[in-house]
Amino acid sequence: MKDVAAAAGVGLKTVSRVVNEESGVSPAMAARVRAAIAELGFRRNDSARLLRTGSTASVGLVLEDIGDPFSSTLSRGVEAVAREHGCLLFAGSSAEDPDRERELALALCARRVDGLLVVPAGGDHGYLLPETASGLAVVFLDRPGAGIEADAVLSDNAGGAPAGTAHLIAHGHRRIGFVGDLPHIHTCAERLRGYREAMGTAGLPVDERWIATGPTDPATVGRAVRRLLTDGPDGRAEPVTALFTANNRVTLAALQALAGLPARPAVVGFDDLELAALLSPGLTVVAQDPETLGRTAARLLFDRLGRDTSPPRRVELPTRLIVRGSGELPPA
Amino acid sequence: MKDVAAAAGVGLKTVSRVVNEESGVSPAMAARVRAAIAELGFRRNDSARLLRTGSTASVGLVLEDIGDPFSSTLSRGVEAVAREHGCLLFAGSSAEDPDRERELALALCARRVDGLLVVPAGGDHGYLLPETASGLAVVFLDRPGAGIEADAVLSDNAGGAPAGTAHLIAHGHRRIGFVGDLPHIHTCAERLRGYREAMGTAGLPVDERWIATGPTDPATVGRAVRRLLTDGPDGRAEPVTALFTANNRVTLAALQALAGLPARPAVVGFDDLELAALLSPGLTVVAQDPETLGRTAARLLFDRLGRDTSPPRRVELPTRLIVRGSGELPPA
Repeated sequence: MKDVAAAAGVGLKTVSRVVNEESGVSPAMAARVRAAIAELGFRRNDSARLLRTGSTASVGLVLEDIGDPFSSTLSRGVEAVAREHGCLLFAGSSAEDPDRERELALALCARRVDGLLVVPAGGDHGYLLPETASGLAVVFLDRPGAGIEADAVLSDNAGGAPAGTAHLIAHGHRRIGFVGDLPHIHTCAERLRGYREAMGTAGLPVDERWIATGPTDPATVGRAVRRLLTDGPDGRAEPVTALFTANNRVTLAALQALAGLPARPAVVGFDDLELAALLSPGLTVVAQDPETLGRTAARLLFDRLGRDTSPPRRVELPTRLIVRGSGELPPA
Repeated sequence: MKDVAAAAGVGLKTVSRVVNEESGVSPAMAARVRAAIAELGFRRNDSARLLRTGSTASVGLVLEDIGDPFSSTLSRGVEAVAREHGCLLFAGSSAEDPDRERELALALCARRVDGLLVVPAGGDHGYLLPETASGLAVVFLDRPGAGIEADAVLSDNAGGAPAGTAHLIAHGHRRIGFVGDLPHIHTCAERLRGYREAMGTAGLPVDERWIATGPTDPATVGRAVRRLLTDGPDGRAEPVTALFTANNRVTLAALQALAGLPARPAVVGFDDLELAALLSPGLTVVAQDPETLGRTAARLLFDRLGRDTSPPRRVELPTRLIVRGSGELPPA
């Protein structure tokens, strides 16, 4: 800026006024400054200004995996709202690792993001207390945070999972398998609770061997699906006739495993998939709306940055049962 | 930091050494500083340090649409490499709008990202010249940049598109429709060129009415597909018997349109889709590898940041024809 001032033959304050589009500079002088800027290739450096104003006009987003369709659609929603507020978005993935979530969240805090959106991997977010005490706004999404009072925007897992399970029961199924993510993950736990609740409401017993939770890689899910569809080693447990697959990755892996098997169980998945309607039969799902989840959480965050000091809110977005064929197959 | 120094009864330099994990502080004194930090809730502010060192340990990524599976898988690759280098990732979407690409790229520059990865929406990136002159590293991905010398990492569109088209020709098709993105987009133009090349190599004429390029929304693509599969108004142009769909969004929309039609043309898509193998028939595709694209571009970027001053490189990653059924249907 000193070089620009010297080249234009004006004071530093005048350059600053032109750069920041403030008033008090004559058009002729502003033109001289702009010519000097163009000639010298002056680049505005937001860091200094941001250091002064205290706002970085950026928000941080800690996802599970930026490459997953659920996370990326959620990001799209967050980005749209951030853009409306002239904010840039830092995004990173925790890979479901609590240490990595913490590391990433604190790295974003060190960049002085104005606000932080977190899809929790860990079960304790007390590490954010010094940050929120210093003015950081935090909103959790997809799963609630713990150890800290903050807003959370979630899908109605406790309503969606029973609806999907009840749909299978309504189509004549009595032995229904549940295939889910790691059981300590909030969404998996809630959906499993919903499955049990729907079975209980229908007066159906749940054989614990019908429940398979764990990593969602195709090999693990494939083994679980094959096990659920064959008799147990004791010859007593009859195979299930339907599967409730509790998230998009599980559903995808289960469908891949089923493609190589003779059994045709009914399937209801939690989360919609892009080609779900084009499968034969079409895939019946309990759909979340990750874009609205991202938008809603981002709006809450900007409300907080706009000095909304009301008590923390917990927003639950409805899920929607989409009937396409796979969930309406009768028991074999 | 002054408050911490006062509370610990040490000098500012000592606090700085402890925070930055430099040597020259006794364990006892470091413990005192850390206790003061814990008590005061001191938060490290990277801005000042970054202003001093000149590096922000962050890279920017301008995508087409963070919510699209191609973009999000590409982001996953970039993120993995950025993480290896201790860098955070700023990401934003241009929505295929050149003005928005420029605005986003320059906003990232104003945050002094160390490097910038750009999926170009516009056809002129001369606006980045002052930035690169000041030391910014730039790598283009998926499409080459223009008006600036910089590395580019692309898929082998000129090899993949002829391979997909030739596959349809080898299965007996003579009238093949091309459905693509906006024709000014580099990838679309290259794939169309590849389609024409394969037709020419086989000695087949191309009726210009077989080529449909434009927006990739389902309604537009659906209209194009229905038009290609019916006779023209002059009654002369026979419908095509096969479709080459030139990216993931076009393929998805075309499959949705075909689900409501009696015609069963052969289909080869450019880009793989998540459930492609589970459709009936399975979807034959020319697959790109967006994760490797992202990783390769990010590695090049960090090479440049590591003072690699060799001339700009253009890296082309191979595509892969995956045969699953839809591309092997015979002409009706």
